[in-house]
Amino acid sequence: MSRPSVPIKLHPSGQTIQATPGVPLLEALAEAGVVLDAPCGGEGICGKCRVVIHDGAGPPNPAEEKAFSDRDLQAGMRLACQTLVTAPIKVEVPETSRLATFHQILAESTPSETVDRDAVVRKQYVELSIPGRGDEAADQVRLGAAVGPFEADLDVIRRLPAQLRADRFRGTAVLAGPHLLGFEPGNTESESFAVAVDVGTTTLVAMLIDLATGEELAIASELNPQTRYGDDVLSRIQLAGKDGGLARLQQCIVEAVQGLLERLVSTAGISLERIYEVSFAGNTTMQHLLTGLDTRYLGEVPFVPSVRSSLWFPARELGLRIHPNGRAYVLSVIGGFVGGDIVAGMLVTDLVRRPGATLLIDVGTNGEIVLASGNHVLAAAAAAGPAFEGARITHGMRACAGAIERVTFDDRLEIATIGHTAPRGLCGSALIDVAALMLDYGVISPEGRFRTRADLPTDAPDDIRRRTSEDRENMSFELASAQESATGRPIVINQADIRQLQLASGAIRAGIELLTRRAGIEPRDVSELIIAGGFGNYIRRAKAQRIGLIPPSIPCERIRYSGNTSLAGARLALLSGKKRAEAEDLAARTEHIDLSTDPAFQWTFADSMIFPGGY
Amino acid sequence: MSRPSVPIKLHPSGQTIQATPGVPLLEALAEAGVVLDAPCGGEGICGKCRVVIHDGAGPPNPAEEKAFSDRDLQAGMRLACQTLVTAPIKVEVPETSRLATFHQILAESTPSETVDRDAVVRKQYVELSIPGRGDEAADQVRLGAAVGPFEADLDVIRRLPAQLRADRFRGTAVLAGPHLLGFEPGNTESESFAVAVDVGTTTLVAMLIDLATGEELAIASELNPQTRYGDDVLSRIQLAGKDGGLARLQQCIVEAVQGLLERLVSTAGISLERIYEVSFAGNTTMQHLLTGLDTRYLGEVPFVPSVRSSLWFPARELGLRIHPNGRAYVLSVIGGFVGGDIVAGMLVTDLVRRPGATLLIDVGTNGEIVLASGNHVLAAAAAAGPAFEGARITHGMRACAGAIERVTFDDRLEIATIGHTAPRGLCGSALIDVAALMLDYGVISPEGRFRTRADLPTDAPDDIRRRTSEDRENMSFELASAQESATGRPIVINQADIRQLQLASGAIRAGIELLTRRAGIEPRDVSELIIAGGFGNYIRRAKAQRIGLIPPSIPCERIRYSGNTSLAGARLALLSGKKRAEAEDLAARTEHIDLSTDPAFQWTFADSMIFPGGY
Repeated sequence: MSRPSVPIKLHPSGQTIQATPGVPLLEALAEAGVVLDAPCGGEGICGKCRVVIHDGAGPPNPAEEKAFSDRDLQAGMRLACQTLVTAPIKVEVPETSRLATFHQILAESTPSETVDRDAVVRKQYVELSIPGRGDEAADQVRLGAAVGPFEADLDVIRRLPAQLRADRFRGTAVLAGPHLLGFEPGNTESESFAVAVDVGTTTLVAMLIDLATGEELAIASELNPQTRYGDDVLSRIQLAGKDGGLARLQQCIVEAVQGLLERLVSTAGISLERIYEVSFAGNTTMQHLLTGLDTRYLGEVPFVPSVRSSLWFPARELGLRIHPNGRAYVLSVIGGFVGGDIVAGMLVTDLVRRPGATLLIDVGTNGEIVLASGNHVLAAAAAAGPAFEGARITHGMRACAGAIERVTFDDRLEIATIGHTAPRGLCGSALIDVAALMLDYGVISPEGRFRTRADLPTDAPDDIRRRTSEDRENMSFELASAQESATGRPIVINQADIRQLQLASGAIRAGIELLTRRAGIEPRDVSELIIAGGFGNYIRRAKAQRIGLIPPSIPCERIRYSGNTSLAGARLALLSGKKRAEAEDLAARTEHIDLSTDPAFQWTFADSMIFPGGY
Repeated sequence: MSRPSVPIKLHPSGQTIQATPGVPLLEALAEAGVVLDAPCGGEGICGKCRVVIHDGAGPPNPAEEKAFSDRDLQAGMRLACQTLVTAPIKVEVPETSRLATFHQILAESTPSETVDRDAVVRKQYVELSIPGRGDEAADQVRLGAAVGPFEADLDVIRRLPAQLRADRFRGTAVLAGPHLLGFEPGNTESESFAVAVDVGTTTLVAMLIDLATGEELAIASELNPQTRYGDDVLSRIQLAGKDGGLARLQQCIVEAVQGLLERLVSTAGISLERIYEVSFAGNTTMQHLLTGLDTRYLGEVPFVPSVRSSLWFPARELGLRIHPNGRAYVLSVIGGFVGGDIVAGMLVTDLVRRPGATLLIDVGTNGEIVLASGNHVLAAAAAAGPAFEGARITHGMRACAGAIERVTFDDRLEIATIGHTAPRGLCGSALIDVAALMLDYGVISPEGRFRTRADLPTDAPDDIRRRTSEDRENMSFELASAQESATGRPIVINQADIRQLQLASGAIRAGIELLTRRAGIEPRDVSELIIAGGFGNYIRRAKAQRIGLIPPSIPCERIRYSGNTSLAGARLALLSGKKRAEAEDLAARTEHIDLSTDPAFQWTFADSMIFPGGY
């Protein structure tokens, strides 16, 4: 199951990220937390996701030829959405191309200087007075007078006296909150690092941070090795409930994280011992599996997590090898299916401080929805099912090489596949595209019923007509013919697929409707809708509204993408104690709504499955 | 080195204590924390230390015949000071015989009910609501709502969900401060135990406490096995500084403590798993050695301890086997030679709440002196040296069988030995007695110079005269002749012994003088002087004042004994969180005085070595 990754070196930082071969550069960068502005949804139209490829630029495509002058093209300018990663490249991302990701968001909400000075891990070089007659204070008291009172493991206290005396009571105290982690010879204040980890169900992304400067030094990602035991959260919960299953799942993810840590330190040329903290954000199940908590009750009604608060403990308790007394921090969660990744998103987007009512949505197997309206914050998970990840769709597949990831129509239907290969199936973003298209041309009714070719509206374009089946018993819409397809069989969407999409989209839409209703507002009153999460970045807003996944009543300009807020939130928790406390407070005071207990749930869900407008 | 011990069963509690064979019952009881009233200093005169020996009472001695009626004697009434422990006995100690030990002191200062309800370890039986649709709170939150917010080790959180569900969310939460230690099936509120340990340089005493009732269930004591590596603190510090030495010292004391715990639970018929906390009080070095802290700098000027604050950590970190998440608590210290045992004494005697200026003195190798005067608390250690423990005294020995422990004179000199055997040497209390006697009859001058028989005052009794040597070159005073002695050689006190006593007594006396001076008072202004520590209980006040160890200007009735306050303080720390916090506060705000830096030190010390008054 493991795919080789392709290194992308970022210029001028020297940071290296690892990409899945065949993905658009836009996507690879976004996965690593570098989110580019792409208001056209990555369609090659707006020309905003400009990058400079210093090494290994391929020939420009028509969209790029239109976007750049010959001279710019010669200089390596390309559109990140049009460039597929196939071989190692060196890329420069101009600041102007970066989107409202955590960079911009942080800059908006919290000056990064403030954030930097408030990191939970703190180093302080000290030169203490040397004990003598009349100055016989305990070592603990002497050091505490300089760095503030601290707690310490027995082991740290055992070593302290000799460490203090090694260089006449000079050296660097390392603290994490109230804990003294160690005392280092010399002044090591500038050598203080931490790693933020986004624990995705599918992908792990880790970012090395220089705590002294706040800079990101390197990013690395890796397939979550738990995928070998099952693609989704529930199959892992099932395995974890079996003898030794939890231990196996935990061990493999910890090993993968350790692998990422080692890649990061080797890229940056530092030692593991200088990493003092690792923070983790992921969905509730991933956080439980990482820390070895009991997940059995996450897998049955009413989906109860073991903990809601954050966890903070010595990283060695997970078996992670960083500084011997380094700490692990795992974000708070809100509920069984509203996890630390969402809390991270709330933190990074400054959700509760935004004017008006703000919606944060993470579209995936579970659609997590948070609505902040003043001080009142509601959160719910909508059981969307795996349709957006390509599962239970006849020709559905993950967003990897060979997947149709975009469908457009302009006289004739055009498909784009990841890796520019012959298509093998379609992924979630293409499913949304094609459903929107089918609605536009009447191939399906607002209720999601297929029409045969004969029943199509008279003005339906020929290419649409041609792709719509005549067979009333087996209705389908063809995306690629047997000749075009890599599998030798046509790639189609059928009635069952549309039903799956309706269920997925309807669940999320119903969640939005119910949460806004609870807050006493209508979707149109939402002043901002933020789409978070990896998948969200590849959804085209207009198409998502066309199928009703996003309420059409929200003006398009109020919808924006926020990139990998899980990683960004884990990073903020490292850089700022205040932000960490804020995340904990946010999680604790958010009201968790079990949508299924809402008396209006069934009706709203049924309503939401109906596509808006159309023929 | 290990001596067999003799069990003493206390009636009606059933508690069993272990005594060194040959010691007076008064002493054996005191070592186990049962301190009897003995204002005459254990001389068999006051008749206050009455006990009933239900089983194994020997024939009464003349003092007992004088104190009791025939009927009482027949009923087993005896004086604890006159009864030597030689075989197993069953003893009842009437409440009226108990001294102002922690029982009385607690009763004075803190109603024991208040103390009991405030124990740091807390059990709470809960019946929680069962999760369901609309009630999907995290297990942590559900339990926290009933018992208050808590922290927990990963391991505890890992087990909690299944434990909660084992009996439909009913069971007993065990908390220690903010830490959840576990969740037990059924209602185990009444099964909550803890052990207080006095970590003496020579003896370990452990007391099993029922946290639900505050009762003491059993006491056990044991020679500190570290004595095999050296009798005093400094020899152990030296060994600890060598390769593997610290680990060896720590391991043997932890094993001994574990042995005591096992004896206690077997006496009480409970399981080790039901012990949730062990508290420790001892001198600074003993506490360091127990916890494996670096003692090297306790052994050199300026005698700096590693920590001053209390330590609180999982007991398993010491290798102690109690409840898997049970805690260990080690009392705060004040300085390198003013340890947790003294802090315990300050706590138990309610030192800072007493009216006027109160002195607390623990006489031993180091004489620890605390002076509380209103809110101002001063503490110092006086390097008395080992004379009071019988070391560096020609015929000195520890207070064990064969030691002359008391010397009286009434026409002729009488000695009492521990175990009523022929004498083998003398211990500290007898040294004080004999020096007082020699001063009274002019055998030594106030400067401590011996007189020959010829130079004695003319009215010196014959028996004194006979025992004083004629030889000017080798002056001595005989306590036992070669015929009387068990060794075949006479037991004598010589000039060098008197010098050692002067050094020991002078050091403590100088400390008292300097501390009172710092507080702006004179010794005579002291409204109460409390003698703490094991040895202190066997010193006769009048004799101690005669030699100037205690300032003669303090009226005798202001001097009292407080028994084993180290054990009592460790017990209080278990029973009351408020008391624990008070001990920490006391230790932190006590000003530690390095006597040697006082400009007046040399003169005061020299002055204090002169015996008061006399010929």
